[in-house]
Amino acid sequence: MTGTSLRDPAKKYFGPDVSDRERAIFEGAITLGAIYHQFIGTPIRDRKMLERTIEQAALAQPFVERASVRISIPKRKRKPPYDYPVLSAEMLTVSLVARYGEARVELGMKYVEELDYPLMFIRR
Amino acid sequence: MTGTSLRDPAKKYFGPDVSDRERAIFEGAITLGAIYHQFIGTPIRDRKMLERTIEQAALAQPFVERASVRISIPKRKRKPPYDYPVLSAEMLTVSLVARYGEARVELGMKYVEELDYPLMFIRR
Amino acid sequence: MTGTSLRDPAKKYFGPDVSDRERAIFEGAITLGAIYHQFIGTPIRDRKMLERTIEQAALAQPFVERASVRISIPKRKRKPPYDYPVLSAEMLTVSLVARYGEARVELGMKYVEELDYPLMFIRR
Amino acid sequence: MTGTSLRDPAKKYFGPDVSDRERAIFEGAITLGAIYHQFIGTPIRDRKMLERTIEQAALAQPFVERASVRISIPKRKRKPPYDYPVLSAEMLTVSLVARYGEARVELGMKYVEELDYPLMFIRR
Repeated sequence: MTGTSLRDPAKKYFGPDVSDRERAIFEGAITLGAIYHQFIGTPIRDRKMLERTIEQAALAQPFVERASVRISIPKRKRKPPYDYPVLSAEMLTVSLVARYGEARVELGMKYVEELDYPLMFIRR
Repeated sequence: MTGTSLRDPAKKYFGPDVSDRERAIFEGAITLGAIYHQFIGTPIRDRKMLERTIEQAALAQPFVERASVRISIPKRKRKPPYDYPVLSAEMLTVSLVARYGEARVELGMKYVEELDYPLMFIRR
Repeated sequence: MTGTSLRDPAKKYFGPDVSDRERAIFEGAITLGAIYHQFIGTPIRDRKMLERTIEQAALAQPFVERASVRISIPKRKRKPPYDYPVLSAEMLTVSLVARYGEARVELGMKYVEELDYPLMFIRR
Repeated sequence: MTGTSLRDPAKKYFGPDVSDRERAIFEGAITLGAIYHQFIGTPIRDRKMLERTIEQAALAQPFVERASVRISIPKRKRKPPYDYPVLSAEMLTVSLVARYGEARVELGMKYVEELDYPLMFIRR
């Protein structure tokens, strides 16, 4: 019996067969999709502050317990004054821990060269 | 043994204990987060076309098999020419089917008055 | 003396020295910034419908009179099922006409190879 | 004769009759549209950091010289854990200075109760 479940007024809107682990995966995955589609396109001037801001946005989501975001900016060759970087999915490495009841899952996102794709995944 | 699993070059990036059902939940939930954070703020002039466009964006995501989006716009009282609506989470009702291997899950999003919150949920 | 000016309840919030042409530039430029930051990151499945949807979003903005959007998708080499394109600024060619009072301006956005930059500009 | 004009490799893409003041308005207005459509929908956990992050995104844009962002969050009545605020246009007060050549303009955005609208404007 978990405190989290008891304090969740939305539980009744979920199917009765949804386990705590499935719910944790659900909440973490929403957050990954949110990060991608909220912040892609942001002009970057203070990389570290943008990383922290994305982490805070993730942590605002219910049931996200830990969030770590790293942005890696490739070298640019644009002419000034047009040489500032803009956040793309390829720059993002995200690691989250989502918790629901007794279940805790690690999820993440990173660019995978082999797929040429910013992959989102469940680590365990 | 499913065709989908065999054709997924990203499978190895997931923990070995992730079930097909968990993966389907994961993919559907990413799509719900994506829809919210991609389209909120869009000025609305052709409501039905925007609904179809959001559905197509959802269906572009791997493993999303069906998508249905409805936008309901409350009456406004703004003065012209500032009286056009802008998509908010409260206006959105989304229903998705995500499939991975043999598993198929129904997920959705709708505004829940009781919570005053645009809730995302797993139906079954 | 123009009908538009008379019907604009926001005019008093602008500096008294703002000309109709400056206001038309202002409104058109907001719309260019809006298109970029609203739609970048959208997964593309029906390119033509997404073009029309972006045009409608532009036309919802006060004082935007005409809008034309073209998306050109470069060839991809990703593995299925991860081979769908996602809207980037480089894919977008936008042409707008903004009008305020007697003034009418043409503005646009396109990727400029020389600058390696999705440039926004005032045509005339 | 200004250094800025000389250093702008994009100048030739603009109509020959575009004044420095019009260009400054153009650049500032793009930034207002960008802020709105980039950040609306962001979950807020650290309000002050989000304000600074939006300012930095504005300052990354060419020709934006100063940026000040304030977010005011109305009281909520949602049930925990769904009680976090999400950035809406109504919460935003933005003030920018854009400069091009000799021209400097002040632009802004704020919610105007009379219009029930998050108005963007040129102050002078």
